[in-house]
Amino acid sequence: MKNITDKLAERIKKLGNPTVAGLDPRVDMLPDDLKKFAKDKPSSAKAVAEFTYKIIDKIKDIVPAVKIQSAFYEIYDEYGTVVMKAIADYAKRAGLIVMADVKRNDIGSTAEAYASAYLDGDLYDYITVNPYLGYDGIKPFTDKCAEKGKGIFVLARTSNPSAAAIQNMKLETGDTLYEHIGKLIAEWGKDLKGESGYSAVGAVVGATNPAEAARLRAALPGVFFLVPGYGAQGGKGADAAASFDEHGGGAIVNNSRGIIAAYRKPEYSSLAYYDAAREAAIAMREDLRSALKL
Amino acid sequence: MKNITDKLAERIKKLGNPTVAGLDPRVDMLPDDLKKFAKDKPSSAKAVAEFTYKIIDKIKDIVPAVKIQSAFYEIYDEYGTVVMKAIADYAKRAGLIVMADVKRNDIGSTAEAYASAYLDGDLYDYITVNPYLGYDGIKPFTDKCAEKGKGIFVLARTSNPSAAAIQNMKLETGDTLYEHIGKLIAEWGKDLKGESGYSAVGAVVGATNPAEAARLRAALPGVFFLVPGYGAQGGKGADAAASFDEHGGGAIVNNSRGIIAAYRKPEYSSLAYYDAAREAAIAMREDLRSALKL
Repeated sequence: MKNITDKLAERIKKLGNPTVAGLDPRVDMLPDDLKKFAKDKPSSAKAVAEFTYKIIDKIKDIVPAVKIQSAFYEIYDEYGTVVMKAIADYAKRAGLIVMADVKRNDIGSTAEAYASAYLDGDLYDYITVNPYLGYDGIKPFTDKCAEKGKGIFVLARTSNPSAAAIQNMKLETGDTLYEHIGKLIAEWGKDLKGESGYSAVGAVVGATNPAEAARLRAALPGVFFLVPGYGAQGGKGADAAASFDEHGGGAIVNNSRGIIAAYRKPEYSSLAYYDAAREAAIAMREDLRSALKL
Repeated sequence: MKNITDKLAERIKKLGNPTVAGLDPRVDMLPDDLKKFAKDKPSSAKAVAEFTYKIIDKIKDIVPAVKIQSAFYEIYDEYGTVVMKAIADYAKRAGLIVMADVKRNDIGSTAEAYASAYLDGDLYDYITVNPYLGYDGIKPFTDKCAEKGKGIFVLARTSNPSAAAIQNMKLETGDTLYEHIGKLIAEWGKDLKGESGYSAVGAVVGATNPAEAARLRAALPGVFFLVPGYGAQGGKGADAAASFDEHGGGAIVNNSRGIIAAYRKPEYSSLAYYDAAREAAIAMREDLRSALKL
């Protein structure tokens, strides 16, 4: 039976583009004609929504998926919750796979409540989850994935500099912590594999450490990777390529500011922000196609 | 200068009770006369709020602090966000220290957005944070703590059974991962110490492993502990005592269902739910006083 990762892989193939556009809008990122309406939490949430809808319209035939960063909506309290759901709904109706980047983590009935909050209903296909609590903090999510045909991406090796002080610690077993977590992620997702061989339980693996990504890619053949760190964090298509399998599959690369705030770059400064987002998404697609020889 | 942990320690001392009551209400936990109003998300959020307000009224002179578990409000979408804020406000005005158990974790401007969402304004004195991303995922929160006089509790050794498969992994250095994280937490909070010697950056250390808690307590003299696992998860006062310093300070013990759902226990079944919560909070106070020889 097809799982959500099969559906993601099909959309990636159809568009020839393993990119997920990160929808992380901040008021200071809005063009002046929208920023002027952002006076308080309700009006800021509304301005952010308007900004984001227009970007979705312009990138929906270029990227297969969007990732909504919860923090940039929670900052507007209940107005943000409403807007986050509205944007997810808008993206779903545009045919996009929708990920909620929430990095939730808890145990027992608390994790069940998070799983219900984000994976019941039709808004989100995937959420991100933090592994620090072990399987007790994962099973409520994988149970929900099995029930509702959804997926999760579990943090393995993140793209930020200080991650190494924890994730790269060498264990007595010889593995680094991120390798140990990677093996657990493969184990946690082994019963949720789809027709493509990839599980609905994926891993977050940064583009900023290609050698480490390549080692994880080889060790975890059934685990789909969500790859942050491209663009603003310094990763390039050639770096991200380490997270892909030999057929150019098995991963999707996130870019947030590089797409939605592209209009502030000199090369796109003559364009409206939504046209700049489209051009930046096309440029990233070409970079990845070239790096992956698609 | 006093930090938030000094204020917490003062309230604990004044009430002679190192208990934080976890406000984790679920609809299936409500008494029938409230449950009957919970039909959908708005009405469920409202029923949960009414339930929780009455408990706060009855425990505010017994416990020094409450911990609000975000998951049980997020499940009601924007209605939950409104109610979570309203409960925090109600608890603050009752003189309680308020913790938001959100376990957020992210980096850079995303973590700044979370810090702003939960530590700007007057609602929450502390939030919980997950350490897996390293200092990049902590600094935005500690910066906000310094600016606003707030605090965080960072997960070190959690109370759930499967935590060991990650947190107890032995590192090449000889430390377990949770000991390594504990030392990082002490380092991250070293500039936020108050008059009592305890930092505004605390650690979550479960009551279910007293030997491990005792080892962390000895290793981390300036780190205040938030102790889950008492009651429903099996920990008793004598177990929780391992997290306290030689003066009976340095820690606060959480109890959620054991207080707010106490009315369902045989010994409290003749009481209204809020009176049962009060009696259970008093019984826990006496258990901790006895274990700590206060």
